[in-house]
Amino acid sequence: MASEVAAPPKSEATPPPPPPPVRENYFAVDVALRVLLFSATLVSLVVMVSSKQTELVILPGVPIRVRVPAKFNHSPAFIYFVAAMAVACLYSIITTLASISVVLKPEYSKKFLLHFAFWDALILGIVASATGAAGGVAYIGLKGNSHTGWMKVCPVYDKFCRHLGSSIAISLLAAVLLVLLSLLSSYSLYLRIRD
Amino acid sequence: MASEVAAPPKSEATPPPPPPPVRENYFAVDVALRVLLFSATLVSLVVMVSSKQTELVILPGVPIRVRVPAKFNHSPAFIYFVAAMAVACLYSIITTLASISVVLKPEYSKKFLLHFAFWDALILGIVASATGAAGGVAYIGLKGNSHTGWMKVCPVYDKFCRHLGSSIAISLLAAVLLVLLSLLSSYSLYLRIRD
Repeated sequence: MASEVAAPPKSEATPPPPPPPVRENYFAVDVALRVLLFSATLVSLVVMVSSKQTELVILPGVPIRVRVPAKFNHSPAFIYFVAAMAVACLYSIITTLASISVVLKPEYSKKFLLHFAFWDALILGIVASATGAAGGVAYIGLKGNSHTGWMKVCPVYDKFCRHLGSSIAISLLAAVLLVLLSLLSSYSLYLRIRD
Repeated sequence: MASEVAAPPKSEATPPPPPPPVRENYFAVDVALRVLLFSATLVSLVVMVSSKQTELVILPGVPIRVRVPAKFNHSPAFIYFVAAMAVACLYSIITTLASISVVLKPEYSKKFLLHFAFWDALILGIVASATGAAGGVAYIGLKGNSHTGWMKVCPVYDKFCRHLGSSIAISLLAAVLLVLLSLLSSYSLYLRIRD
């Protein structure tokens, strides 16, 4: 600001207009994507945590049917999934606030873009691996595996499996949003290169 | 080159030295990381594909021990893993060549950086989700799951499980390399911003 104010008196009577600063436009898109990311991770988290279902099942060696619950914390993959979604949800809150602050005060946008580009990639890795882990285990629950003798659980625990499937689908959406955010940060950096 | 040769005769006797182009330095690191990524994905792929092991096991209802093989393609998660590693390996070859071409001809480096930043994020998502899926299923093979009655397979198929574990560990390294590459592309874009 200071150099721009000081420069005109020394130049000609008709100073050339400075190039229009077509820059801060993308932070609005950034905020929107981050709010979407927050919604996606929160919904995914809630759907996964609320997946508990108790059914009467026949256990080998027990003469009567017993009530057996199915919960997400019966599998380490789903526990990791919940932890990853919680991290991504928290991250989306923090970066939404950061992105709003850049919209209000564009001076720091350059530094923020670099940080966003790095952290988005890291969170993308966490969300994608959690989606993969939960999806891989849920697929065994759905289809079983005849080679290893792992049985299907979804015919009995239908609501549990619906919750898992929905949660994993939404986390896949969150991963796609993170790829888009990563692209947006890089593109915003790219647009600022002058040469 | 042509403009630099033409410029000096019109300027003063002591032309001011142009600002040093401290820019193309990071493409050498980029090439090195991409070669590492190629090695990691290739080793991971080979170790996973070569994991076949045949053991004599007792099957229920069969009076004698029978030879039962364990192969990666008995689980959809491992098939996805192999496909993802093959894609990442091919991608690393293509981008290594692209990065070398930028080292030799730096004119196009700006465009390349943007493309790298986007595609690195996408391939990171694929590699991380494949690592998660294979890791989640391999963990069930290692520890079993008492809640669903899924049995361990690693006590019988020890070599198979060692291959799986090594392959997944190396693919995790590949995911870390992709995060670093993504950071490097963003940082290189960042360094070129003048304001």
